[in-house]
Amino acid sequence: MAQSFKKIVIFGVGLIGGSFALALRKAHAVSEVVGFGRSAATLEQARQLGIIDRIGEDVACEVADADLVLLATPVGQMAELMARISPHLGAHTLVTDGGSTKGDVVAAARANMGGRISQFVPAHPIAGAEKSGAAAAMADLYVGKKVVLTPLPENSNESVARVRLAWEACDAVVSELTAEQHDAVFAAVSHLPHLLSFALVHDLAQRDDRDLLLSFAASGFRDFTRIAASSPEMWRDISLANREALLRELQAYIGELTMMSSALEAGDAARLEQIFRTARELRAGWAERQGQ
Amino acid sequence: MAQSFKKIVIFGVGLIGGSFALALRKAHAVSEVVGFGRSAATLEQARQLGIIDRIGEDVACEVADADLVLLATPVGQMAELMARISPHLGAHTLVTDGGSTKGDVVAAARANMGGRISQFVPAHPIAGAEKSGAAAAMADLYVGKKVVLTPLPENSNESVARVRLAWEACDAVVSELTAEQHDAVFAAVSHLPHLLSFALVHDLAQRDDRDLLLSFAASGFRDFTRIAASSPEMWRDISLANREALLRELQAYIGELTMMSSALEAGDAARLEQIFRTARELRAGWAERQGQ
Repeated sequence: MAQSFKKIVIFGVGLIGGSFALALRKAHAVSEVVGFGRSAATLEQARQLGIIDRIGEDVACEVADADLVLLATPVGQMAELMARISPHLGAHTLVTDGGSTKGDVVAAARANMGGRISQFVPAHPIAGAEKSGAAAAMADLYVGKKVVLTPLPENSNESVARVRLAWEACDAVVSELTAEQHDAVFAAVSHLPHLLSFALVHDLAQRDDRDLLLSFAASGFRDFTRIAASSPEMWRDISLANREALLRELQAYIGELTMMSSALEAGDAARLEQIFRTARELRAGWAERQGQ
Repeated sequence: MAQSFKKIVIFGVGLIGGSFALALRKAHAVSEVVGFGRSAATLEQARQLGIIDRIGEDVACEVADADLVLLATPVGQMAELMARISPHLGAHTLVTDGGSTKGDVVAAARANMGGRISQFVPAHPIAGAEKSGAAAAMADLYVGKKVVLTPLPENSNESVARVRLAWEACDAVVSELTAEQHDAVFAAVSHLPHLLSFALVHDLAQRDDRDLLLSFAASGFRDFTRIAASSPEMWRDISLANREALLRELQAYIGELTMMSSALEAGDAARLEQIFRTARELRAGWAERQGQ
């Protein structure tokens, strides 16, 4: 895949953006990477680490002849960025993003990109973010990881194929959903579990005997609450961005717990065992397919 | 600790009972270990693996001159065992157990051990049970792990000290709670998380699009649902054995989720961030103390 992209511009050269650049470089899929960001120190670090070739100075200039622009900032900053770059995008410049919610990003694009909306192909790379920053960027972050594209009706097939090509050059496994499907899926398998894990620990934090309780917490607690160590700001933003789907999931889950509570109160051993068994079988089948 | 116990009798020579025997042997804290169990094949395997010296034949005989008897069977079998052994216990024979709930085990002891109740010192070794069976037994299973004793008012200090000595010979960290405290603590930090994890996967299992949903599940889901791969029978029994405390925890948690749902519905960013931050800080402090 020699030089599929002559020039790529990346806004936000941290874990997501930096790893994208490193992966494309490793695949010899890009000739030049230009970086923008809020922190001069991070940009300089990214340049020294070989993530970017140059630190961008003039946004209008740089996006005009870019093949691809990646928005890898927090989702909250994307609307403003879209408004800034849209008037200057070249006719063949494509834009993609790394946001973990899609309905809100698409809405921001529709509000801020005007006639350039067909050039924006939204994406969500599913890559763990326990670390952050340019120093955490890795050329193999996306290897074997899923990336979901949520193409717009306005996107041409060629535009979607080009953005897919970029993520595939990172050795990611690319699939497509509508933005609405995407947000419903991730509410169920990612956003809800994060909320539930935060809720358990927050519940314990309110108690006078929390230190006693925690002193007996073991490996089950450790695994269940690992995601409660995630960034409060990021999960505040994700929760609010995907509020409708997440509220539906929360209500369904409260219903599930109420049913389980009734079975427990009634001492219904058969029902409890059947619930646990159904869960274990689905979980085991998933783990086998995932090789985890 | 040379020969602290001349003879130990173990009912159930699987992971819990077998590892107890191996650990005491390694510490040179026991001269002879006799095993009983439901499966002749498992007992023979335990003998060949050097877990036990002999397979017991006559319960009455063997417990009469034992220093210590460990009940390491499923909790549901303990009442019957207690009734069988009690009339034959020597005057100095102590009995302990490895059950993960304590209120129900104590109730079974009161109902079945009569005047021998002072010889029973209940215990709960907190050791992961992902594997089971004699082949899974390890001399170092309990090293650095917590064991909770829940002594009875009838136990003499000497009896509690002897049972503590046995678990400490396994290099476990021994602490004491009342049975009621124990069950309340484990409802909060172990039993509730297991139910919540089972509930999430069971909720997904009911859906027509479960395969699509699961195909996008990633590492957060994996960690959160690891305990949903636990034994349905064992968790049915634990849930029912600790029903009252677990129902209280479930209600508190449903209240927590309802509060979180209201904050989300109101778009209360500050409240959500504060909940997540409080949780993360408590979790981080715990992880640091545990070295996990």
